[in-house]
Parts: sequence; C-alpha cells; structure tokens
Amino acid sequence: MTNPRSPLGHHLLADFHGVAPELINHPGNIARYLEEAARCIQVTVLGCHVHHFGEGGGVTGVLLLAESHMSIHTWPELGFAAVDVFTCTPQPPHEAIRYLEQVFKPGRLVVQQSLRGVEQG
Amino acid sequence: MTNPRSPLGHHLLADFHGVAPELINHPGNIARYLEEAARCIQVTVLGCHVHHFGEGGGVTGVLLLAESHMSIHTWPELGFAAVDVFTCTPQPPHEAIRYLEQVFKPGRLVVQQSLRGVEQG
Repeated sequence: MTNPRSPLGHHLLADFHGVAPELINHPGNIARYLEEAARCIQVTVLGCHVHHFGEGGGVTGVLLLAESHMSIHTWPELGFAAVDVFTCTPQPPHEAIRYLEQVFKPGRLVVQQSLRGVEQG
Repeated sequence: MTNPRSPLGHHLLADFHGVAPELINHPGNIARYLEEAARCIQVTVLGCHVHHFGEGGGVTGVLLLAESHMSIHTWPELGFAAVDVFTCTPQPPHEAIRYLEQVFKPGRLVVQQSLRGVEQG
C-alpha cells in the first residue's frame, strides 16, 4: 500500500481576474466552455452540473470526469472566475486553462499547480 | 474591478494515504461521507453526483455547494483518496477534512491550502 509510485494526478487552480462580467454570468455558456475545455484535454465527461445564482449573481458548475473533475465559480460583479482542473493523466491539463484564457481574456491569470497522490520519498 | 479586497475563498486539497480499501469503494457511503462533511462546515448542498467505476475501481464524486464545491476521487487498490474542498466562507473548511480523517483513518494525510481570488497588492 505504500510502494513509491508516480503522482496520481495533476491539479491546477486558476484564478481569472478582470473578466468581462457578461462572459461569466450565463449558465448555458459556462457549461459549453467547460465541455470545450474538457475536449481540449481529451478527457471523458461523466456529468455536468451548473447552477445559476440569478441575474448578476454568478454561476457555479462542475464537470465530473472519468479522469477526475473540473469546476468553475464566477463572481460577475467582481469580474472574477475561479477554475480548478484535476486529472489523473500523465500530463497536467494546461490546455484546458489556455482555452478558458482565450474565452475569458482575463486582465490577470494566476495558476497554481499541485501534484496529487505523491508517495513519501 | 481591481479594488483590493479579501480573498474570495479557501481551497483545501487533501491527500489521504493508507486508507482501508473497503472505506473508499462504495458510492453510497462516499455520498454520505461528503454530505456529512458538508454539514460539519455548515454549507448548502445544491447537488451531489457520485460515479462508481465498478468493483474495486474506485469512486469519483462531487458536491456542488452554494459556497462552491467539494470533490473526492478514490483509488481503493492503492488505499488512496484525493479530496478538495473549496468554500467562499470567512474561515477555511478544515472541519470537513477533519471529519473525513475520522472516517478514513489514513496512515498519512497531506493537506495543501490555497487562497482563491486574491487581488494584486
């Protein structure tokens, strides 16, 4: 149970600042963006759940993936969207973030990367 | 759009190593653990989606929260579970992780904490 092994997954946390509010306030669009981001990294979508908090109140959504998950939470009033992409694939899922960067055109993008399931050395 | 403000959320990534496989292989139990963890941090569950990859193949699940999300991905064959809890609450959601630690009794628990939505100084 404790044999050393490669990390089991890559987890990217991406903060999109300075996004035009109209880009992150429509649940149908957000679902489409997430599904397109999933296509960019060639993962399998098991389910999509997007919730709208009402006009101007933002959107929260999750894609359940065979390879883990992708999520987004938006604050249109602040021009902010928080995304995370976790995949148990050999390569980190940067292409998903790059696609969303093209869509959201943020003034500032901050990405943190974590390895998941790393065994003790 | 770029006024300084407090972080918008806390994101905890928790790796549970050395977990008994039978604790992390049942989708019904996993859904119950996630919902109980949500109760521990007093958040509102909007939806729960749990997928089972078949006998011994592990479980992947997400709770959509009014305050963001919680996820779990399990590898029973490795005794490993990856959890993340993201909440836009004033306090980080450590109690959710503590509850799961009591349930899973991991040999080793590694928690990373990230602030989300931090404005430039």
